[in-house]
Amino acid sequence: MDDTEYHKQLGIGESAFESLEEHMKDRSYDGFEYRHVPDYRRGVERGTALIAGEVVRGFPKLPRTLVLETGIPNKFDDTVVVEEKLNGYNARFARIDGDVLAFSRSGMVCPFTTRIVDRLVDLDPLFDEYPEAMVCGEMIGPENPYTAHDYAAVDSIALRVFDWRDRTSGEPLPIDERRDRYDRFEIPQTRYFGRYDVDDAAEEVDRIIRDLDAEGREGVVMKTPDGSEQLKYTTSSSSQDDLAFAFSLPFDYGKSFMFRRLIREGFQSVERGESDAAAQERAHELGEAIFLSMRESIQTVEEGNRVGERHTARASSETIDALLDHLRDQGLQIEIEDDRREAGDRVVTFCKRTQSTNDKIQNYLEGHIVRE
Amino acid sequence: MDDTEYHKQLGIGESAFESLEEHMKDRSYDGFEYRHVPDYRRGVERGTALIAGEVVRGFPKLPRTLVLETGIPNKFDDTVVVEEKLNGYNARFARIDGDVLAFSRSGMVCPFTTRIVDRLVDLDPLFDEYPEAMVCGEMIGPENPYTAHDYAAVDSIALRVFDWRDRTSGEPLPIDERRDRYDRFEIPQTRYFGRYDVDDAAEEVDRIIRDLDAEGREGVVMKTPDGSEQLKYTTSSSSQDDLAFAFSLPFDYGKSFMFRRLIREGFQSVERGESDAAAQERAHELGEAIFLSMRESIQTVEEGNRVGERHTARASSETIDALLDHLRDQGLQIEIEDDRREAGDRVVTFCKRTQSTNDKIQNYLEGHIVRE
Repeated sequence: MDDTEYHKQLGIGESAFESLEEHMKDRSYDGFEYRHVPDYRRGVERGTALIAGEVVRGFPKLPRTLVLETGIPNKFDDTVVVEEKLNGYNARFARIDGDVLAFSRSGMVCPFTTRIVDRLVDLDPLFDEYPEAMVCGEMIGPENPYTAHDYAAVDSIALRVFDWRDRTSGEPLPIDERRDRYDRFEIPQTRYFGRYDVDDAAEEVDRIIRDLDAEGREGVVMKTPDGSEQLKYTTSSSSQDDLAFAFSLPFDYGKSFMFRRLIREGFQSVERGESDAAAQERAHELGEAIFLSMRESIQTVEEGNRVGERHTARASSETIDALLDHLRDQGLQIEIEDDRREAGDRVVTFCKRTQSTNDKIQNYLEGHIVRE
Repeated sequence: MDDTEYHKQLGIGESAFESLEEHMKDRSYDGFEYRHVPDYRRGVERGTALIAGEVVRGFPKLPRTLVLETGIPNKFDDTVVVEEKLNGYNARFARIDGDVLAFSRSGMVCPFTTRIVDRLVDLDPLFDEYPEAMVCGEMIGPENPYTAHDYAAVDSIALRVFDWRDRTSGEPLPIDERRDRYDRFEIPQTRYFGRYDVDDAAEEVDRIIRDLDAEGREGVVMKTPDGSEQLKYTTSSSSQDDLAFAFSLPFDYGKSFMFRRLIREGFQSVERGESDAAAQERAHELGEAIFLSMRESIQTVEEGNRVGERHTARASSETIDALLDHLRDQGLQIEIEDDRREAGDRVVTFCKRTQSTNDKIQNYLEGHIVRE
């Protein structure tokens, strides 16, 4: 298929498509040559992939509010549906030339997710009936090569779907229809909290968020019943976990990443009308998240060890090899820390090297002079 | 004087001077037309001013170490002289065409400092004897229109000198000679802690820093006896004060400003081999500095008030007018909050509006949707 078709499928003009092409990356996967849009661009979602003549739309960015009481009515007119937002990694599944492929947030085919999903759910009946579907979900659980977070019900890795879109247009199904269909195909979904009138939604979401926070869970996505509008809001424990992680690798994570999470805490505290004592406790928790994790990383380097992002994955030996090749192909430095067999599976723990943090901490410990 | 002379005085080539000129700002002060270098550039110090055919060099950037034990021997070969670093604003004084003018860090003539210095010290005998001198000092105290910080000995505003340089070349006097000369002219200097062997300096500076920290003071500058090399190191209380201030105006202060101060705390804790309990206390203090000040600003805006940088200045009415004009000329929005007479002086409290913080907090409180 030539590019003329792609611009039509994307619904943009030829010249817009030509300028988009300059920002696409060429990739290959198992005989497929494909291109994807790795960064945010005007006109098309980040993560959109062009593969075998087909468009696989990126998942739209989820807008956020810092204040429920005012943000919800800004985004919603009458009804707000609330579902859980899980902390894992975003994966989209589409069937291309007969193969179900998993696409990452940035539009790469992920060989690990593509292979492991077969163990978790059977997507074939769904794609037989709806060949143009794009199944959108979160891969969660502790044995997760990208974003590990514990969920009580998940021992290794699991898929929880939260959206169903047309792969070419990106149009979502209405929520009720989506939930019914996934139920019918026995595909596990993210939790559904309820459908609220816009005037009650802030109070309801606040209550839900407090419960999720107590369980160390991430937050919610609010949607219009037709699925077209989305808004997220997250828990304090999610911000604090992110801060602790980011400050354990302070020179590899952006300052904006840190700053945004601190700001969220401030607005949540003020919206809740938190007492001074409660605010002080939040301040102490935040201080610990930021400072103790940073201190631990400096100590680790001082003791002659290296810091990095540690992950564990459990799969067949072939899938693990495909994962490690995929990560290394992206220029990541991967060190295998543990590699063992368990009940026919290979369980590998690896560390993604974070060069900046290791180098800068080492330099500063050696008395590097800062010109600031 | 034409520009040919300036490049010779600066010790750079004609073409280097021409490219420097593009980055200079034109200003005028009381009949003087002058230019200055407001930002960091290669080849010449930030804050260098060209005025009435004379060069007034910028004050060099002070390099910093995050770790004393290794940073000091990186910078010094044998002897380290330690003096106090004060928390105020940097001012350089030079006599141009018979007038003693005060230059700001960025090279502007400051009408307030130029006028107020006459009350504080008599620089005329010094300039009579050394007309080419550049007197470098810190303006400190609570009635300070730029950087207010309390010092027990200072009720209003005071000058403490810490360097003496040739105004054209920027060459410093050796420390002993500088201190003797300033003593002779009865000009108050920053505190002198001592002269240490490089092998003992880290331990001595650590001891000094702990004392300064307990008093809420900023830190030290270490120098070679000839004054040519400098290195700074600051207290935890200074970092925490800065963080509290920056997070009270979170959208006006750079994320880098915040990040650097957090990092300093991490290295200080690790270098000191702080216990887990002490580190936890530091974490709590940091959390309070960051979070409580941010929360207070959000609350202030929520209550319908505005946040900003509040300063007080005490001087003659004419000097206060010159200060306010000077600030407004730079595009700052100044609101007078209090303006009264006391013992023949005018004492004005004003607030520099920080537009970003006011606007962003207001927007987020109104439910502005964040696309991040």
